[in-house]
Amino acid sequence: MAVWSERLAGVRGVLLDISGVLLDCGAGGGVPIPGSVEAVARLKQSQLKVRFCTNESQRSRGKLVGLLQQLGFDISEAEVTSPAPAACQILKERGLRPHLLIHDEIHSEFDKIDTSNPNCVVIADAADAFSYKNMNKAFQVLMELENPVLISLGKGRYYKETSGLMLDVGAYVKALEYACGIEAEVVGKPSPEFFKSALEVMGVEAHQAIMIGDDIVGDVGGAQRCGMRALLVRTGKFSPKC
Amino acid sequence: MAVWSERLAGVRGVLLDISGVLLDCGAGGGVPIPGSVEAVARLKQSQLKVRFCTNESQRSRGKLVGLLQQLGFDISEAEVTSPAPAACQILKERGLRPHLLIHDEIHSEFDKIDTSNPNCVVIADAADAFSYKNMNKAFQVLMELENPVLISLGKGRYYKETSGLMLDVGAYVKALEYACGIEAEVVGKPSPEFFKSALEVMGVEAHQAIMIGDDIVGDVGGAQRCGMRALLVRTGKFSPKC
Repeated sequence: MAVWSERLAGVRGVLLDISGVLLDCGAGGGVPIPGSVEAVARLKQSQLKVRFCTNESQRSRGKLVGLLQQLGFDISEAEVTSPAPAACQILKERGLRPHLLIHDEIHSEFDKIDTSNPNCVVIADAADAFSYKNMNKAFQVLMELENPVLISLGKGRYYKETSGLMLDVGAYVKALEYACGIEAEVVGKPSPEFFKSALEVMGVEAHQAIMIGDDIVGDVGGAQRCGMRALLVRTGKFSPKC
Repeated sequence: MAVWSERLAGVRGVLLDISGVLLDCGAGGGVPIPGSVEAVARLKQSQLKVRFCTNESQRSRGKLVGLLQQLGFDISEAEVTSPAPAACQILKERGLRPHLLIHDEIHSEFDKIDTSNPNCVVIADAADAFSYKNMNKAFQVLMELENPVLISLGKGRYYKETSGLMLDVGAYVKALEYACGIEAEVVGKPSPEFFKSALEVMGVEAHQAIMIGDDIVGDVGGAQRCGMRALLVRTGKFSPKC
């Protein structure tokens, strides 16, 4: 096994996942994973550039950062790459008016988006809002479109809360893909565009960056396909079986 | 185009789908599709053997047959092949104790099945019972099993009610398959075992039988793969796009 100094040679930037790496989500928002507050502080004191790269779509970027600050993390909104703002950019560029199947908490991120007479569906981690009624409505909107467009904020299989494993948006994306015979466009990890947008803001090349996450597909696989290095932590949803 | 007499040469048995072929489901149970009551009566007066082959899993076989009889159909419970009784047979044979993600209306079909300390999940068309909470519970049960077994009553993408298209069990099966990294065992159409069990009861060989349905995959494709002929009706969920 290569020593750490070799593995990290030439690294100038670190991308950190949030849920499962910094935070165990759960009732009341979540608790820091032991050592994570100190690790972020130490990274920020180093020469490395640091950015937070999350698929969080249950909370707005503002609320998430507010929670992390309360918990002692050195983090600001401008340091976070998250899928809702990226999706809004795409919707504007392509003149798309979404039907939103999302958590109440992130409706504010879509405040400036025209949702009248929808010509696409945006799906995010809606949790309890993934009722049969809401899923069926999204399905019916897609089936009525000549060219159905489904935009998904991430495609995770599941995440870990303090109470246990929870189904993530990816499961519900698969349901709609199968029912409608379509393929969703993913905004968020592991989409290469998403990682590249984070790297651009950092001013760091892919081969100079390392992604740290708890998802072998979304974090590690996605980053590696972009030419980045990646590190799988053993917190969060990590399981030796995966 | 071959004339009908050639296409039907040697046919001794007719298998009829119910929803979308005989019945438009909806509020109050449903209404007969025009001409279907008379068509069943005429088939029964002919020399052909007739059997009803349905993936219905929102209502027990008894309730479904009761409704059809009220609507004027000549049908008895013994003439219906449906997935819940077939699933019960499999559960007993393999010593499986299911966690049930099913509609309240078909719990009675599983009355004699041991559901303590579950070692598999059975999923059916649960409709409004497909809440996030219920889906998450089924997911958690599967994730805790060393060898997760998911048995699905059908795998339809959607069906048509009088009010419009509705998501069917297949969409939710896909969600659990993706989240757990497993593949479900399908009991019901288009499973070959299911068609074969219907043919056995009829005493008819596959090449002597024709399946009449509104699902190009579940009815037509499934029957053809078993060596049967098949006919796609233009009622129910039929769409020229599919």
